[in-house]
Amino acid sequence: MTKIWQKGYSINAQVERYTSAQNSLLDDRLIRHDVWGSLAHAIMLRQIGILEDEELQALQQAMHEILEQEKTHAFVIQPGDEDVHTSVENFLTEKVGPAGKKIHTTRSRNDQVLVDVRLYSKEELIQTSKKLSNLCETLLRFAQANVDVPMPGYTHMQRGMLSSVGLWAAAFVEALLDDERLLAAAYEINDQSPLGSAAGYGVPFPIDRQLVSDLLGFAHVQNNVIYVQNARGKIEAAIVQALTQIMLDLSKFAQDMLLFTTAEYGFFQVSQEVCTGSSIMPQKRNLDIMELVRGRAQTMLAHQQHILGLVTGLPSGFNMDYQETKRPLMEALDLAQETLDICALVIDHVTVNKERLQAACTFELFATDRAYEMVTNQQMAFRDAYRIVGKEVTAQLDQHIPFPTESQEQLVSRLKARSHLGGTGNPGLELAQQRLEQAQENWQQRTTTFKTAIQQLVGTSLIHILEEE
Amino acid sequence: MTKIWQKGYSINAQVERYTSAQNSLLDDRLIRHDVWGSLAHAIMLRQIGILEDEELQALQQAMHEILEQEKTHAFVIQPGDEDVHTSVENFLTEKVGPAGKKIHTTRSRNDQVLVDVRLYSKEELIQTSKKLSNLCETLLRFAQANVDVPMPGYTHMQRGMLSSVGLWAAAFVEALLDDERLLAAAYEINDQSPLGSAAGYGVPFPIDRQLVSDLLGFAHVQNNVIYVQNARGKIEAAIVQALTQIMLDLSKFAQDMLLFTTAEYGFFQVSQEVCTGSSIMPQKRNLDIMELVRGRAQTMLAHQQHILGLVTGLPSGFNMDYQETKRPLMEALDLAQETLDICALVIDHVTVNKERLQAACTFELFATDRAYEMVTNQQMAFRDAYRIVGKEVTAQLDQHIPFPTESQEQLVSRLKARSHLGGTGNPGLELAQQRLEQAQENWQQRTTTFKTAIQQLVGTSLIHILEEE
Amino acid sequence: MTKIWQKGYSINAQVERYTSAQNSLLDDRLIRHDVWGSLAHAIMLRQIGILEDEELQALQQAMHEILEQEKTHAFVIQPGDEDVHTSVENFLTEKVGPAGKKIHTTRSRNDQVLVDVRLYSKEELIQTSKKLSNLCETLLRFAQANVDVPMPGYTHMQRGMLSSVGLWAAAFVEALLDDERLLAAAYEINDQSPLGSAAGYGVPFPIDRQLVSDLLGFAHVQNNVIYVQNARGKIEAAIVQALTQIMLDLSKFAQDMLLFTTAEYGFFQVSQEVCTGSSIMPQKRNLDIMELVRGRAQTMLAHQQHILGLVTGLPSGFNMDYQETKRPLMEALDLAQETLDICALVIDHVTVNKERLQAACTFELFATDRAYEMVTNQQMAFRDAYRIVGKEVTAQLDQHIPFPTESQEQLVSRLKARSHLGGTGNPGLELAQQRLEQAQENWQQRTTTFKTAIQQLVGTSLIHILEEE
Amino acid sequence: MTKIWQKGYSINAQVERYTSAQNSLLDDRLIRHDVWGSLAHAIMLRQIGILEDEELQALQQAMHEILEQEKTHAFVIQPGDEDVHTSVENFLTEKVGPAGKKIHTTRSRNDQVLVDVRLYSKEELIQTSKKLSNLCETLLRFAQANVDVPMPGYTHMQRGMLSSVGLWAAAFVEALLDDERLLAAAYEINDQSPLGSAAGYGVPFPIDRQLVSDLLGFAHVQNNVIYVQNARGKIEAAIVQALTQIMLDLSKFAQDMLLFTTAEYGFFQVSQEVCTGSSIMPQKRNLDIMELVRGRAQTMLAHQQHILGLVTGLPSGFNMDYQETKRPLMEALDLAQETLDICALVIDHVTVNKERLQAACTFELFATDRAYEMVTNQQMAFRDAYRIVGKEVTAQLDQHIPFPTESQEQLVSRLKARSHLGGTGNPGLELAQQRLEQAQENWQQRTTTFKTAIQQLVGTSLIHILEEE
Repeated sequence: MTKIWQKGYSINAQVERYTSAQNSLLDDRLIRHDVWGSLAHAIMLRQIGILEDEELQALQQAMHEILEQEKTHAFVIQPGDEDVHTSVENFLTEKVGPAGKKIHTTRSRNDQVLVDVRLYSKEELIQTSKKLSNLCETLLRFAQANVDVPMPGYTHMQRGMLSSVGLWAAAFVEALLDDERLLAAAYEINDQSPLGSAAGYGVPFPIDRQLVSDLLGFAHVQNNVIYVQNARGKIEAAIVQALTQIMLDLSKFAQDMLLFTTAEYGFFQVSQEVCTGSSIMPQKRNLDIMELVRGRAQTMLAHQQHILGLVTGLPSGFNMDYQETKRPLMEALDLAQETLDICALVIDHVTVNKERLQAACTFELFATDRAYEMVTNQQMAFRDAYRIVGKEVTAQLDQHIPFPTESQEQLVSRLKARSHLGGTGNPGLELAQQRLEQAQENWQQRTTTFKTAIQQLVGTSLIHILEEE
Repeated sequence: MTKIWQKGYSINAQVERYTSAQNSLLDDRLIRHDVWGSLAHAIMLRQIGILEDEELQALQQAMHEILEQEKTHAFVIQPGDEDVHTSVENFLTEKVGPAGKKIHTTRSRNDQVLVDVRLYSKEELIQTSKKLSNLCETLLRFAQANVDVPMPGYTHMQRGMLSSVGLWAAAFVEALLDDERLLAAAYEINDQSPLGSAAGYGVPFPIDRQLVSDLLGFAHVQNNVIYVQNARGKIEAAIVQALTQIMLDLSKFAQDMLLFTTAEYGFFQVSQEVCTGSSIMPQKRNLDIMELVRGRAQTMLAHQQHILGLVTGLPSGFNMDYQETKRPLMEALDLAQETLDICALVIDHVTVNKERLQAACTFELFATDRAYEMVTNQQMAFRDAYRIVGKEVTAQLDQHIPFPTESQEQLVSRLKARSHLGGTGNPGLELAQQRLEQAQENWQQRTTTFKTAIQQLVGTSLIHILEEE
Repeated sequence: MTKIWQKGYSINAQVERYTSAQNSLLDDRLIRHDVWGSLAHAIMLRQIGILEDEELQALQQAMHEILEQEKTHAFVIQPGDEDVHTSVENFLTEKVGPAGKKIHTTRSRNDQVLVDVRLYSKEELIQTSKKLSNLCETLLRFAQANVDVPMPGYTHMQRGMLSSVGLWAAAFVEALLDDERLLAAAYEINDQSPLGSAAGYGVPFPIDRQLVSDLLGFAHVQNNVIYVQNARGKIEAAIVQALTQIMLDLSKFAQDMLLFTTAEYGFFQVSQEVCTGSSIMPQKRNLDIMELVRGRAQTMLAHQQHILGLVTGLPSGFNMDYQETKRPLMEALDLAQETLDICALVIDHVTVNKERLQAACTFELFATDRAYEMVTNQQMAFRDAYRIVGKEVTAQLDQHIPFPTESQEQLVSRLKARSHLGGTGNPGLELAQQRLEQAQENWQQRTTTFKTAIQQLVGTSLIHILEEE
Repeated sequence: MTKIWQKGYSINAQVERYTSAQNSLLDDRLIRHDVWGSLAHAIMLRQIGILEDEELQALQQAMHEILEQEKTHAFVIQPGDEDVHTSVENFLTEKVGPAGKKIHTTRSRNDQVLVDVRLYSKEELIQTSKKLSNLCETLLRFAQANVDVPMPGYTHMQRGMLSSVGLWAAAFVEALLDDERLLAAAYEINDQSPLGSAAGYGVPFPIDRQLVSDLLGFAHVQNNVIYVQNARGKIEAAIVQALTQIMLDLSKFAQDMLLFTTAEYGFFQVSQEVCTGSSIMPQKRNLDIMELVRGRAQTMLAHQQHILGLVTGLPSGFNMDYQETKRPLMEALDLAQETLDICALVIDHVTVNKERLQAACTFELFATDRAYEMVTNQQMAFRDAYRIVGKEVTAQLDQHIPFPTESQEQLVSRLKARSHLGGTGNPGLELAQQRLEQAQENWQQRTTTFKTAIQQLVGTSLIHILEEE
């Protein structure tokens, strides 16, 4: 096959290798999106008189064939084709002849990359929201089940005050729900139709950009055609920034899990089927996946830096550097989804060791409680009470007198006493549940708008979108 | 003065230096926010019976005094005081005696840092939105004035298709308007009251977190107290991520300006009062500020990486590493605001060189137009027309035949012919204007909610918020 | 096949997928290095009496078989095998029975990963040095050929002073020669034998670490076994930091090439066989590869950040996060090598447009020269001369009087007048040539030491190292 | 005072603020270096006949005055002066009249920034090496004192094998000694004289660059004048990359310290004078400084990213973006030095809790030892022994049978049994000591070369270099 811009000379093989790199591999994921975009574009070309009815029908039929093939991974991007856009155009030209050579009228490949990546991102963001939502549900169940299990609360990695396993787990739910808002903002920025920008300066043709946008289910047309190109990498960055927030939370979860499952803490045990072993130490059960979650949060940061590094300081208009944003975007979306799943899986394999937790709730956790008792009972000013208790505890520490432990009942009653909003006695799990349901509803709506449009465009039998793996 | 946690021993001086670093310098910016938080906290302490009426009044009066002093920069954080919170507590204790020692009941310094930084960020985000909005207005005026000035449109830094100065300028407006949405999402995440988290595990006291939140004008209470602490750095990162998007756009603007003002392009001239000179080359007029805008976009990326690097992988609960997020946040907010201003200033000092622009619109820009003419007039398929024109132009290039230029009228009529949405003939400046006004209205509403609450808390004479420099 | 640590239960499939990720794909590159390490380890085990002579011979024969297979890519890491180490151990156990089960005595997989990656890096660093050296030669030839071609020298992207094409090209040679020193320092840090660290705490066996180190051609044993593990990621980072310096220089080269080949500058033309075209604009010849070089410098920065992000803040001892450093290291080494090649290729396809260059050397470049004439002829103080010339030039600029050009002879004589060290009249190409040869000699020595050891270990027929692609 | 390039118009105040930013603050650190460079430059100007003897003497005297003033911080960079170079030139012109206006002949401010920063960096790198060396000594003493104190060795944060406190501490020494090599490579790259590059394209004057280089004690002239400018940011990056390696090691040290001082581990106690307290929890003793070391390693990563982000992709020749590299460089050098000191301080305040360490050395650490016993005593293949022990230990784990502990003697004898190079029984502290001494000697030599040259340049009474704070 030939490159669509070829005009009678050969490109240096080394250059070709350096230029295309993994592009065709990545483009395997964009086949259906490229066809969707082309279908909408062809309908518009018919509308403005570039295509005849029969040409449109022939093109549609050929494109349906591609979608059919894609379902079984039978449509293959030829190595010499550079990218999915070329493969699709070449396929169409081969299948339907002259009409195939017309499909590219009033558009550019940059246009197509843009629309493909946006449609792809919409699918992936919706999937991400589902997995985020699933992890929230898992964490909420776990929090509910452990709402009265006392646990030391740490500051500076030192025991500080009384906390509970339920409160700890629910903290991640609220973090993820904030992430959901950032994810929704990224979805919104991404939900603009780029088609019609062509090479970034429009075309001297009265194309109907609104029609194409509607056919593809976008919220609106991205107006200024220069901005359309300038947004390359920018929108990818916005998406990855939101994913970074998710990974940040999960890295904290992972670090907690790693500490809580050490021999020294011993608060949680994790079933061995989610652990791995050592080649030399027969006794080892390592929670590798949590180390990987912690590590891959750094991978996400590198993706974010990568995309922003690529596009910052570039002049207006398309620059080839943009091509390089595709890979970190795709890997970032995969990574966030897999990691959300892994965390939900691990939670379901945790056994809470209540004895160890109770034993760890030593009296030092209640030094502040004691100061408060003085405040309440003796009308002492807090800072004075603080100083008195401070001296007592310091003396005890210096003489290595171990702190006494409390009974399970005492501890639970202390948990209940923290009865204000968001405290251990009032963790507001139902509030989190409500926010979660609201978020789920919003994403359901986004999904429906998107799916309905694509369904109308390709027909029910060919739709292949947002399916469960 | 003494540290509030001091209990009779001295801390090593080197440790003290390493620990506090620039903290007290940064905290100079948080004096009023710390007082606002303390005022709301004190009212709540009165409500739940920790403070007497007279104590509250005495504290309020002392705090009003601090606000009064802050207006003239007279309130100084003592070097030995560690931070603003200690300075304020020490001041209160000195002024009102015992009641000062009560003010810290049921709260922690972590609580205070959190509330201070959130209130500070709210102010700064509102300022940022104003400056963003101002730059949009400046760019729109400039776009309007140059809507019919032809300009080559570049791809790969090579001349590609016809564009216009107006379309180029308006592209930045739409980019900034998308940034505004991300900024609003960051504002929303930040607009949660943290107070009542104490050291991150709540307190065994029936404190009224909702009351405090309402008094400070927050949208709602951030519920889970562990999440409150875990959000440290996370919310800062969300803000800086939005600012990064702004700087990304401005770096593109800067790079364009630098190219367009070279001797080689010569499209724009910038008045010498915004340029600087050389110590050795008498002829130089350098657009240093645009180089600095380009460079400082990288500073913003470093801030983003800094904050996220600090917090990723930390366990739950307060960690001292969080302290380090204050500086990059504050510098990031300053940087975005100053840079928005600088860009608006430069736009106002640009002279457009229409002759050079016209001369640069050589015929190669219209190769695609010619192919389209064949499509329209000769019913040729686009790909065929493309190949024919391609051969012609290649021949011309190889024989170094210079491309002819077109007259101003021809060019303008070509601009008009790109009449679809977002093209040079229909750039949609009024749409951008509408979006801008909607955004301004939304920020006005946020401002009013915030300012009204603070006004009620401190009284009109003491309010010192969101003032123009 | 089975995991070597398996003890009778199955690991969750999702966990397995998340854990191994691309590990086996990456490990395809480490087959021979793993065998080399195992050969040296086996000889040592014989020495200390763990293996019998026949066992050693059987193992050696089986390992030679793997090396034979690797030559034709016939040795495949089984998907269920986790990594190359497991595949090799399983292969040996299958081939030679009990002795295969002994090979892992006194070592750990962490040990193996470390030795494999170090040997791999040694090969790749040597290759990198060759390609760097080749680019230097190409640039020096180009510099020599253009030593007297005048060119404007830019500061702030504005024309500043007279320069030459030769001086410009030679600047990159000296930059790359400084990179070579950093590369050598990274090679030195990497050239330490890790074997014997086992899981990071050594073994209760009198193993001979020096013997193994000598057999593998390492400069010395990395002594402290905890440091051996702690160095994971650290040494990788040191390597990538050096590669970052290379990419930094090449990004500058790329940015210059992109500017110098614009229609506006027109200093260089690049043959179309290293350019690509546009799908919509028939006239386009884009220097995509230089945009990609510029962009991929950012990829290198992301790799550097990725590795350092992964390992910073981890506690001592092996952490699974380390696994994630393998991919960015390998990709970074590939990227640096390919990019060095691409830049050499492009240089060889450049045509210098002397007319455009001469025309661009307008009189403003000589404003400083004029001031110097006043200094010399009129004994004027430089700052006074500067001010006088400055006023003259400013007046000319303000009245838009174009600057006169100079003849080729005048320009060349001006070039010669810059006769001090490193100036256009004395660019020191021979000094660069000498430094290059010294560097080549040093790397030749490193190569010989390494290759000789491996040759003795595996025999001449099986050596497959540092071969040209 | 006036800017040296000023020619009769005023620069916009906002632009001035944005342009100079913290420049004059940073330049306060460069006063003496600027004078040294100017002294060497003036001697050279005398040599080539630009200055008369009396002029040189007058300039020297005036510059000595600046050095005198700098000693007591009396020389102040005027706010309106832009930078140190302008302040110095203005001071000289004021003091000695016409000769002052001659000092800038054949040089540029870019030249001066370069030489100032290189001289500054040389001083700071020497200081850094001293502090690194001091930390090594402290760690070696600590290692020696605890060479026989058993400690669990962790992998995946789980107890893995037996280790010792001495081996743990010595691991950091060897890491730092590798860093020293990278630091030396950075010193070497930095040790090149830039003077004579002028604005990056040399001057039409037979200046003597070698003389200037020798006068300033540089190892050699950086030849190609374009490379001199292109190296801006590049050399800064090389330095910060080496510092990043130091901070990486110290972040690991810090994370270990934080874990080992938790209530759960309890291996170490740190005197309260290096700890801080909590405002709410009277019992807290937090090792804040170690959290800050961990966090500030991320600050160093951000500095590295910042500098590299600034310079990557810039075209050749001076760009204003370079100015921004000064601050991260200076902060990075400060940070590394302070952190090296802090870690040495903390080591000196550690008490090792031998009881807790012994109790933590539970039998699971010896599972591998047991497998090795089977290998030795029963001639069993390692993999078979591994599987048998694995089943035993797993059974014990599943039945929650606690692992027995061993006596101090048993543990020490086990430590001794790891007698190979770099094992607990043979940690090679004397090897580390030798390497350290060699490194110290090398840095002493660098210091002497540098100091001697400067001493000759300024005279003994005015030298103010590398002094202890």
